[in-house]
Amino acid sequence: MEQISSKFIQDAVDELAKLPGIGKKTALRLALFLLKQSVSEVESFGNAVIAMRKNISFCKKCHNICDTEICHICANPKRDPSKVCVVADIRDVMAIENTHQYTGLYHVLGGIISPMDGIGPQDLTIESLVSRIGTNEITEVIMALSTTMEGEMTNHYLFKRLKTYNIQISTIARGIAIGDELEYADELTLGQSILNRHPYENRLQTN
Amino acid sequence: MEQISSKFIQDAVDELAKLPGIGKKTALRLALFLLKQSVSEVESFGNAVIAMRKNISFCKKCHNICDTEICHICANPKRDPSKVCVVADIRDVMAIENTHQYTGLYHVLGGIISPMDGIGPQDLTIESLVSRIGTNEITEVIMALSTTMEGEMTNHYLFKRLKTYNIQISTIARGIAIGDELEYADELTLGQSILNRHPYENRLQTN
Repeated sequence: MEQISSKFIQDAVDELAKLPGIGKKTALRLALFLLKQSVSEVESFGNAVIAMRKNISFCKKCHNICDTEICHICANPKRDPSKVCVVADIRDVMAIENTHQYTGLYHVLGGIISPMDGIGPQDLTIESLVSRIGTNEITEVIMALSTTMEGEMTNHYLFKRLKTYNIQISTIARGIAIGDELEYADELTLGQSILNRHPYENRLQTN
Repeated sequence: MEQISSKFIQDAVDELAKLPGIGKKTALRLALFLLKQSVSEVESFGNAVIAMRKNISFCKKCHNICDTEICHICANPKRDPSKVCVVADIRDVMAIENTHQYTGLYHVLGGIISPMDGIGPQDLTIESLVSRIGTNEITEVIMALSTTMEGEMTNHYLFKRLKTYNIQISTIARGIAIGDELEYADELTLGQSILNRHPYENRLQTN
């Protein structure tokens, strides 16, 4: 790594290099780019990031990020309050919202159970989910977690915690992705997709 | 692109996505990473970038970046003031400093002549270089610019401007990079490296 003659640039490069996926070389390139911008442009850059961190809050109901007490999804009277989709983080909410296929509410766990990373059930918003189910008109919980071992572990834990309630518990379908070639699918996925086969008429209806 | 429910996050993502090589998806990932940091960590991130832009100044002599009036290279009495290496930007200064092979001074042009991008000689610090040569004890100007067409154009312009002075004008050597296979070298470079061949004894001395 080259020596940087300015303490100010060195500090900015060190800070930029803390971002995930950005090394010292890229950080220097970003710093030199910012040096070429006007002072007001760089101020609005730095202040936007600080304002985001300072002003962000989490929805009291579903733990989604929002600027208000209750997020726009929980506050929307057109959403079906009887369905709750459990996701690991807010990016999953954005991804599912983007499909325009889901009209229920969400519950953001804030991660998944991962003993390797020291994340246990108490680190997630599971108690908050349980109390939502206890007090609200929820009839179905849809677990939309990753298909990793940690995701399955979390699914299993959630199922154990929620099965005493009189609600339907489902997981999102595992199967061959749309556009994928059958011959390149792994055996586990292909096996699951055969076990979980569904009537062809159903598919026609949902399309 | 997913819809972002928070105006603060949207603003931060928009600002992060202005950085070169960072698209909306990566900007969102960076924003979510910053959201997980403490407020003081994000403040020191944002303020470091703003402080860099506000406090940076350019060396009055060589236009390198510095925190003071004269950069640490120009101010160093151990550097040879008779040699000036002309480079396009400060990253080139860092790259050459990193070789530990050069003990002279620099002159940062702030770019190279590029009619396609609307950059002419008047946009660069060429007049400042000419006045340095007129008033200082400079005996050699080394042009260390890229081997692109724009770099060669700038070399040519600089040579025309400087040839009336009683100084040596040189360019850095073009040739086969160390570790490169001869058979994969392009013809232009290989041709230049044959034309500019030098006695083997010289190389032994410089190593």
